Amino acid sequence: MRKLTEPEILIESAEIVAIGTELLIGQTLNSNAFYLAKQLNELGINCYHRTVVGDNPQRLKEALTTAVSRSDLVITSGGLGPTADDISMAVSAEVAGIPLVLHEPSTESIEQYFRSSGRVPCENNWKQAMLPRNAYVLENHNGTAPGAVMRFESDEREKAIACLPGPPDELKPMFEDFLKPWIAKRTKYIFKNRYLHMIGIGESDAETRVRDLIDKQENPTIAPYASPGEVCFRLTQRMTRAEREDHALDDLADQIYQRLGKYIYEDGQRSLPQIILDILKKRGQSVAFAESCTAGLISSQLGEIPGASEVFKGSVVSYANQVKADVLGVSPEILKKDGAVSERAALAMAKGAAELLQTDLSVAVTGIAGPDGGSREKPVGTVYIAARYQGRELVKRYQINGNRNRVRTVAALRAYHLAWQILQLNEK
Amino acid sequence: MRKLTEPEILIESAEIVAIGTELLIGQTLNSNAFYLAKQLNELGINCYHRTVVGDNPQRLKEALTTAVSRSDLVITSGGLGPTADDISMAVSAEVAGIPLVLHEPSTESIEQYFRSSGRVPCENNWKQAMLPRNAYVLENHNGTAPGAVMRFESDEREKAIACLPGPPDELKPMFEDFLKPWIAKRTKYIFKNRYLHMIGIGESDAETRVRDLIDKQENPTIAPYASPGEVCFRLTQRMTRAEREDHALDDLADQIYQRLGKYIYEDGQRSLPQIILDILKKRGQSVAFAESCTAGLISSQLGEIPGASEVFKGSVVSYANQVKADVLGVSPEILKKDGAVSERAALAMAKGAAELLQTDLSVAVTGIAGPDGGSREKPVGTVYIAARYQGRELVKRYQINGNRNRVRTVAALRAYHLAWQILQLNEK
Repeated sequence: MRKLTEPEILIESAEIVAIGTELLIGQTLNSNAFYLAKQLNELGINCYHRTVVGDNPQRLKEALTTAVSRSDLVITSGGLGPTADDISMAVSAEVAGIPLVLHEPSTESIEQYFRSSGRVPCENNWKQAMLPRNAYVLENHNGTAPGAVMRFESDEREKAIACLPGPPDELKPMFEDFLKPWIAKRTKYIFKNRYLHMIGIGESDAETRVRDLIDKQENPTIAPYASPGEVCFRLTQRMTRAEREDHALDDLADQIYQRLGKYIYEDGQRSLPQIILDILKKRGQSVAFAESCTAGLISSQLGEIPGASEVFKGSVVSYANQVKADVLGVSPEILKKDGAVSERAALAMAKGAAELLQTDLSVAVTGIAGPDGGSREKPVGTVYIAARYQGRELVKRYQINGNRNRVRTVAALRAYHLAWQILQLNEK
Repeated sequence: MRKLTEPEILIESAEIVAIGTELLIGQTLNSNAFYLAKQLNELGINCYHRTVVGDNPQRLKEALTTAVSRSDLVITSGGLGPTADDISMAVSAEVAGIPLVLHEPSTESIEQYFRSSGRVPCENNWKQAMLPRNAYVLENHNGTAPGAVMRFESDEREKAIACLPGPPDELKPMFEDFLKPWIAKRTKYIFKNRYLHMIGIGESDAETRVRDLIDKQENPTIAPYASPGEVCFRLTQRMTRAEREDHALDDLADQIYQRLGKYIYEDGQRSLPQIILDILKKRGQSVAFAESCTAGLISSQLGEIPGASEVFKGSVVSYANQVKADVLGVSPEILKKDGAVSERAALAMAKGAAELLQTDLSVAVTGIAGPDGGSREKPVGTVYIAARYQGRELVKRYQINGNRNRVRTVAALRAYHLAWQILQLNEK
């Protein structure tokens, strides 16, 4: 192995080359690239490209050559298996101009791995111990294929290719335990991020209000993102290790808070259901939902989170009017006069759920998800949401654009937002 | 628009260029590429590359130029928003050598979209109506940004770039309704698919039983896919338009039915919730759920489907034991002696739901989703499911591997499968 006293590579940019025909035909979701991209971002490494290519030597070679020409580090995922179409290590070594040699410790690991699972390695498996000469070997504790980092010169710059296995259960621990620490020692900058999540303002409106900050931005930067029903600004500051204490990022966040603070519900990366769970857990309180058009979606989003049972008692999905009346106690008069999609019905549903399930907080949603069921007064996308907390009530009417799925998704988000608003009220 | 009498493009190869810094930094999973790759594969189009690039004009231009040089059709996703960093349409048009012009019908759609949601478009939004001259415009019924297909010559070949919006709720319907039919008319071959969905048999077991058919396959082909809790065989026959009536595909399906018929619950693309909905609708009957560890997921999956209200009355999400007892009438004796995760509790929950909501069919799920709450006798992943239909009852214990999310997802699938089984019983 090269000694660490030799001139070191400095990693400012990296790119991911994911290898596998199963990715190109839509059989497998490229979750490795998603994971690695996030990790590299947090290490402060710029990623400007990402590529997916099949198990084809010529196309892989082209993809790697292009990637090496524009990034300091290239990370491959997949194609380290024992079969003939697993070509990543060999093609990477070819691009790096380094011969493959038998790596004795890896043959031992492979032998050991098979022995511990009571199986016998076949001839193919020894191929996995052929690694680039002088490579930094990345151990695999969850499979047979070791990874490797090979370093070489290209266009008079130091470059590296790191090969990782395809199965996420092998790739993630290998990255975390071996490649990440290797990279972290070789970065020029660190990057600090802040994420400001907003509801109640559109993307272009939000951007217009900080247009001057965006126009003059250099470092830190502001990047706006929209997803259904909400907007997020990601603020990023690039800094050297010596600048760790610099507060330009926080100053920028303060300026944005001054202008858009009332829309910001999260300064971080928590989802709204997680935020509601955290608040209620802290207060030792409980929640129930009464869902009509969302039909269990809101409940399910809370149920996804480990530890939800500490605050979540349950819900009534009252799709039929009969259930709204019989189970939640919405009066037939309301259902007849105002209709099931109305302010009074939403309030009565929230009250009914809180009483039936005996919770501190309750949220009810009733609306028209479509594609049918709309009218002139209440077109598809009309949704009433009511929240009830410690004797207080909030109710709102929303008009949500889009198809059935979008109406339901945004209605669920709005329901959590109304819950958040009523929990804030009582805090003041 | 170009007249269809002009020489037409023939699409044999395509590639996806996903655009957005949020993809490169691992903030957003590239689910659009996964979806599109699968769709293109089903259309019989070869994909040899995929690229992700940020919101940077120079790099996007390079990526598109490379993609156009090697594929007949390039599909972009993302970067059609109203803000300054949304550059996909402009850069694509530049690569195609086509000027952008104001597309009047799209300005009207944008105006209409804002009017219907009671908001006012800002200056930025009109940018979204600037489309390549003579483009085939892809309507957006779930957002403001129209898509477009632009056609041009490059290296004396007909090429096309299709720009789609980034939000999946906009991209998918736009592809399905407008781009897919456009592509399907321009492929060399047509591909006929049949999808045989199985539950109750593992992927390698299923594959072994048709190994001889797979080994000798040429056209049609068998492609096995596994997803959590189920296996699907996709049978594909490639044919010219003249071969439309050929029945080799159906002959192959018959052979598979002979060997694996008892595991096949669907010959098509309907989900299990859709199948249950269809059966109940036909019988004029209704359903309710009692959900504990799935916490609304099962209800929500039925609620997703348009027309669910015809059969779906509602559900009780009984996360807390108190709700199982008070609302569903599970006896304290069962909860104390057998526990909330038990055969008797599941049966009592199903009975309680059917009686409370007055339905023909009811299904109850109670289990341990983890990561905590497991014991020696009932480890994480233990799930009891009960179904009740016209006086009959079925109850089963399952042991589901994986994390919380997988346990919940597979439990929901198993619940629908048990519902399907009990509905079949009464058919015979």
